[in-house]
Amino acid sequence: MNRKDLDRILKEAKDRIGPKRFAHNQRVAKTARDLALTHGLDPDRAYLAAILHDIAKTKDLDQLKALAQAYQVDWTPEFDRMPQIAHGFIGAQMARMDLGLEDEEILGAIAYHTTGREAMSQLEKLVYLADYIEPGRDFPGVDKARDLAKKDLDQAMVYALTRTLGFLLQEKIEIALDTVRAWNSYQRG
Amino acid sequence: MNRKDLDRILKEAKDRIGPKRFAHNQRVAKTARDLALTHGLDPDRAYLAAILHDIAKTKDLDQLKALAQAYQVDWTPEFDRMPQIAHGFIGAQMARMDLGLEDEEILGAIAYHTTGREAMSQLEKLVYLADYIEPGRDFPGVDKARDLAKKDLDQAMVYALTRTLGFLLQEKIEIALDTVRAWNSYQRG
Repeated sequence: MNRKDLDRILKEAKDRIGPKRFAHNQRVAKTARDLALTHGLDPDRAYLAAILHDIAKTKDLDQLKALAQAYQVDWTPEFDRMPQIAHGFIGAQMARMDLGLEDEEILGAIAYHTTGREAMSQLEKLVYLADYIEPGRDFPGVDKARDLAKKDLDQAMVYALTRTLGFLLQEKIEIALDTVRAWNSYQRG
Repeated sequence: MNRKDLDRILKEAKDRIGPKRFAHNQRVAKTARDLALTHGLDPDRAYLAAILHDIAKTKDLDQLKALAQAYQVDWTPEFDRMPQIAHGFIGAQMARMDLGLEDEEILGAIAYHTTGREAMSQLEKLVYLADYIEPGRDFPGVDKARDLAKKDLDQAMVYALTRTLGFLLQEKIEIALDTVRAWNSYQRG
């Protein structure tokens, strides 16, 4: 991966998502690095995955669909109903095509940071959780999530998934099947 | 369908599930018939679907797997983790093969009475709800579910699915994807 390509992609992402959202990106990256150090994982891979996690984010649906097409990501019926889950998959493909990134765990962490998925890798959990607990987040239970994430990634994932699914039920919002698959993989044995 | 075949199948089911569970079957059938009359659906089809809904039920996992094999129902990884959802699919196939039943709506109502599924038919909702609210059921909220089921099958389904999913989250039990698909189909437009 070329440093110049990375800088360019991050600059493009900043232009697209705006400085406020980009600051979120940076907080997630720092949180991911800290969590990696706590849990004996590679802090650089964690930082890279996290700094890239929202590179394809945009609230403009047409722009999102254009990015999907440009980066050869199939626009699924699930994306039609839940466009907010598409940017992770597009972002992973962007990292693959524009940066030549081939680290499948980093690509998975970008792709599944919104939904989670069955049997997540440590890096996937870490980015999912860093996004959930970065210092800018403020919701009831966030402190408990922060404590758990420092102690045990799996316990923190179960906590985050339970609260997320409960929130979607309460607010009557459609649920991504991958989030349920992630939840289910924790209810076995 | 031959009346003698039906009597034989119901007798076999009664032997397998015991008289107590079979009495539940009959309460569900009566509830389904009443709901059908309330909502202008065919009471005989509702009764038949409901009286058959648990014909393959058994708590004996080996027996359940043997039934799946005998009735050519693929034993999926999801059944391995949630064997309690298999009996509906086996029961539908039993009704098809032993009774020559070809009414796909009745077969669907038997197959999906435990999980629900995306875009359920009226008869499928009716059997799902009759099973949920039959007079032997006693849980917090059952009276509200009964009221809603008399007024509006869709409102009652949303209520039942919300409570069921909330219960599975709270009790840390794996969630069938079809139940989430059913929930999702109510959160659109």
